[in-house]
Amino acid sequence: MNAPTPRFYLLSVGDELLSGDVLDTNAHWIAGELQRRGHRLLAGQTVGDRVGEIDAAVQRVLREVGAEDEPDAWLLITGGLGPTADDLTRDGVAAACGRALRERPELLAALEGSGRRLTAGARRQAELPEGAEVLDNARGTAPGFFLVHEGLGVAVFPGVPGEMRAMVRALLDARAPRGDSQPPRRVLAVGLAESIAGERLGELMDPSRAGCRVGLCVSRGLLTVTVRGEQAEVMDQVADAVAQRLGSHVISRDASLGLAQLVVAELTRRGLTLSCAESCTGGLLAGALTSVPGSSAVFNESFVTYANAAKIERLGVSPALIAEHGVVSEPVAAAMASGCRAATGSDLALAITGIAGPDGGSPDKPVGTVVHALAHADGVELRTLHAGGSRDEVRARSVQLALDMLRRRLQAGGLSAGP
Amino acid sequence: MNAPTPRFYLLSVGDELLSGDVLDTNAHWIAGELQRRGHRLLAGQTVGDRVGEIDAAVQRVLREVGAEDEPDAWLLITGGLGPTADDLTRDGVAAACGRALRERPELLAALEGSGRRLTAGARRQAELPEGAEVLDNARGTAPGFFLVHEGLGVAVFPGVPGEMRAMVRALLDARAPRGDSQPPRRVLAVGLAESIAGERLGELMDPSRAGCRVGLCVSRGLLTVTVRGEQAEVMDQVADAVAQRLGSHVISRDASLGLAQLVVAELTRRGLTLSCAESCTGGLLAGALTSVPGSSAVFNESFVTYANAAKIERLGVSPALIAEHGVVSEPVAAAMASGCRAATGSDLALAITGIAGPDGGSPDKPVGTVVHALAHADGVELRTLHAGGSRDEVRARSVQLALDMLRRRLQAGGLSAGP
Repeated sequence: MNAPTPRFYLLSVGDELLSGDVLDTNAHWIAGELQRRGHRLLAGQTVGDRVGEIDAAVQRVLREVGAEDEPDAWLLITGGLGPTADDLTRDGVAAACGRALRERPELLAALEGSGRRLTAGARRQAELPEGAEVLDNARGTAPGFFLVHEGLGVAVFPGVPGEMRAMVRALLDARAPRGDSQPPRRVLAVGLAESIAGERLGELMDPSRAGCRVGLCVSRGLLTVTVRGEQAEVMDQVADAVAQRLGSHVISRDASLGLAQLVVAELTRRGLTLSCAESCTGGLLAGALTSVPGSSAVFNESFVTYANAAKIERLGVSPALIAEHGVVSEPVAAAMASGCRAATGSDLALAITGIAGPDGGSPDKPVGTVVHALAHADGVELRTLHAGGSRDEVRARSVQLALDMLRRRLQAGGLSAGP
Repeated sequence: MNAPTPRFYLLSVGDELLSGDVLDTNAHWIAGELQRRGHRLLAGQTVGDRVGEIDAAVQRVLREVGAEDEPDAWLLITGGLGPTADDLTRDGVAAACGRALRERPELLAALEGSGRRLTAGARRQAELPEGAEVLDNARGTAPGFFLVHEGLGVAVFPGVPGEMRAMVRALLDARAPRGDSQPPRRVLAVGLAESIAGERLGELMDPSRAGCRVGLCVSRGLLTVTVRGEQAEVMDQVADAVAQRLGSHVISRDASLGLAQLVVAELTRRGLTLSCAESCTGGLLAGALTSVPGSSAVFNESFVTYANAAKIERLGVSPALIAEHGVVSEPVAAAMASGCRAATGSDLALAITGIAGPDGGSPDKPVGTVVHALAHADGVELRTLHAGGSRDEVRARSVQLALDMLRRRLQAGGLSAGP
């Protein structure tokens, strides 16, 4: 048996994280990067920009590592490395490890050579704890550093995401390229509530299942089932069983592949073009489709027809239809999709009309009512969403539903190009 | 002097956080909510779905609180409270506090009355540590709980954001409605690099400044300067000085007010209408504008003209102009904006054409080159962005720049409605 894959700990430093001003996307990225490399992140901490707090956080990890007799552990630290007064991570690490800070002549020379005015704060970037190795920062001024203390590898990176990512990758490439943890298997699905998905999965989620844990997570209409464990074969079998039970709701087995990518790939493969006519989503459906590199092969243009006059003028929706059924209705959505398809000459057209809120609802059409239409050579399909949540959530779920209607139609087959 | 505002600690539980599958937006929301109420979050931890790890994390906080003789401290815990096998937070808290889990008849009755099949996992939701008080969950099945142990208030919430938020608000309203921490002052600006902003702020960021710390953060073209401290008057003075030094780049003193809200409010106040013609941003500018409730008063419609043919047909751009200057050029952007204004009859029109990448760049027009045009009654203004970063980042910065062009024009005054 190989040596066990090293355990990683993470420390995020910054008052802006504890005040809720900044979302800690660095921790999220590092966690994912470690997993992609077969490593396991054991735990994370977040502390403010104070020497004592950073010192104590590092000492907590040093104690755990010592107590567990685990010399092959790492502590990755982000934030608090820049030139300003609240950048105190180097002081906190030095204190925790009982090492003095020493000015490094080569770092000072590099800072002086950068052509910027060298404030007292900027000059401090040349000071590192005794015995630390410099981690080069090709994209910014603050160097990182690495030291080994009582069996723990401590690596410190700036908090600027672009700088941090390149430096973390370089360090891991050089010193810990691959671990032996199994990456989790994933099944992505849409259009199922968490409770219903849980019922369908049944005993697959049973706690007594050996060596395999199945987790469910729903976000904005997208359901992710994650299978974690140690044995690849068991995990694959369970993921297959999960996919079978979720049936046509499954969109992919790859969490990096969103609905928009899936749909653009399928349209490209078949040589079909698509346009959109959006009301309450106001351009977000087109924005999702064009987030995919290469989407120009299938997506030529689209309309944001927010006002009724725009629906009438651009899409040819009849004013009488709007007056009779209301603008949020199946007949109007169908007319928008058909009109969009006719105006653009695209093979397919998706239309969305709804009430995203917070105002505009009525007893029979409450906020969250959104009608979707997909026009193609064989006719028009309709679906109505009754979504809860905020304006942003209603709009995001509407985009998901529109993309999923298209996915289902494409997977059902039979669509042809042209009118 | 009043009793000091209590310190809050946070513990996020979930393997999905340590694997990088899920971004911890709950921690971000709780941190912000505490700050809005004048409380201070001292530190955060993240651990996986294992009883031992949860137990140890709670014990770490209990030790710190005890050591500091701070009986008025709180530990908020989210995640691991549901019906499935990996929901072990109640076990971990019970272990850390040396209390047994007891089934609560009233909770079991409520679960049985919900009409769902009561699996063994679901039944465990009725088990709470001895002496714990139930925190009602109006939106889901998993109740939370609250207990006081050795001077620490431990409150446990489910990880589902909508459920967690309502329950945290209810608990704080009842037991800790307001603290006495000063909320930070903020100055938001656009169009300045971090290093240049740092130079302008100069000694305002000096570490020796008493009782006031100034921090800088840049994200997707938006710069936030945060002033933290204890004395309201000093903080306000420093924030005023920051705003003065950043000059016309300042967009607001309120971090909750984005550029889109600011622009929609200003257009509404003046009775001006706006349309857009988007190429590389593919609908995201319209999506940002329509994210603002009430935007329909100023925003009627918009075009996503991704293909050249769409620019020609919808906006009347001359094919010869595209052939002569290339589609990413100031003449074409100007023609798109003027054509959009003419086609829609809006008072103002914003147009964007550029190369978002990852492909499509050339030596004289590299990826990240985006031309913006604003057409109004007095003519057309142009700006060209040279952005770095990913496709998503280029698109997001383009939207920010377009909104900021409009903000500057509106604040300069003199615009009138109509042609």
